[in-house]
Amino acid sequence: MTDPSRLVTFVGSSSGPWRIVSSHATIGLPLPPAARLRIVPGCATAPTDDARWALRGVTSNERYVTRPEKLQLVAQSPSLGRPTADCAALIPIRKNTAWWALTQDERRHIFEEQSHHTQIGLDYLPAIARRLHHCRDLGEPQPFDFLTWFEFASHDAPAFDALLARLRASREWTFVEREPELRLVRD
Amino acid sequence: MTDPSRLVTFVGSSSGPWRIVSSHATIGLPLPPAARLRIVPGCATAPTDDARWALRGVTSNERYVTRPEKLQLVAQSPSLGRPTADCAALIPIRKNTAWWALTQDERRHIFEEQSHHTQIGLDYLPAIARRLHHCRDLGEPQPFDFLTWFEFASHDAPAFDALLARLRASREWTFVEREPELRLVRD
Repeated sequence: MTDPSRLVTFVGSSSGPWRIVSSHATIGLPLPPAARLRIVPGCATAPTDDARWALRGVTSNERYVTRPEKLQLVAQSPSLGRPTADCAALIPIRKNTAWWALTQDERRHIFEEQSHHTQIGLDYLPAIARRLHHCRDLGEPQPFDFLTWFEFASHDAPAFDALLARLRASREWTFVEREPELRLVRD
Repeated sequence: MTDPSRLVTFVGSSSGPWRIVSSHATIGLPLPPAARLRIVPGCATAPTDDARWALRGVTSNERYVTRPEKLQLVAQSPSLGRPTADCAALIPIRKNTAWWALTQDERRHIFEEQSHHTQIGLDYLPAIARRLHHCRDLGEPQPFDFLTWFEFASHDAPAFDALLARLRASREWTFVEREPELRLVRD
């Protein structure tokens, strides 16, 4: 029990520093409507909360990147919370059973050698800050496998759109079975 | 929320079908003493329980095996619950921060190319049934990263000892920082 908790809860409700400016789904059902979002360490939320939804995930070790890729990512990745990053996106993803039945080498091959997931992400650094949260092994069944949180300046929104378009056109995305998308601004 | 829970709880208390015949630790602290063990689906235990400890883990996708290795494992692995398998072992493991700071390719290289983890395991099939549970990403900090449950017939206990000795002599085990070991019989 020496680790601090790596658990994070994204709460959609009427309060929080991020205003939800759009909510739709690229694949499957969108999230229930909510006005604002807050990001809470640990297993929020109090029962008196007005939460419309609460999505939980843990930061964890990387699953696919090699050492050279990780060195590039670490060197170029900005941290969350930059004052200039007033736009954000929350993209929960659920992959299908075919993906999870693949072996590690097969998933890596699709993820990077075919879909260039990391290489595409590198093209948008340091503009787009990103943090990945894993939900698949939280214990109780979750609606998503991953929650990815992105932060960027409003003038980088077109670059973020391009990043999403390239990833969604990849072979990896043929295994995605649900993908809501929230866009947010800090006000 | 379409998946059934893959969560399993191992409860050490005064009741359960498995009698704990020995408890020690190869590395770090042993588990608190308990007389018997039961394995419960989901997030046991009731507050009135006499549990001395409860360890949780989820079954999940494999992290290291390749397709050829998986095909060999699937072809040769026995299921749990064989009537002849009256002996068992529960081996929780915690790996150190150096392990988790490695990238996927580095962990795979140590796990298999250097330590032959899967190949060693294959040498003891179909005698030794095994199920791996992951704890590291459960959300709340856990004392272990993995819980491995083994079942075998009493006449295969020397083979099981040999399996453990070979794994513990591997480079992978230099990253293990806690490893209690429970031996059990069904009576």
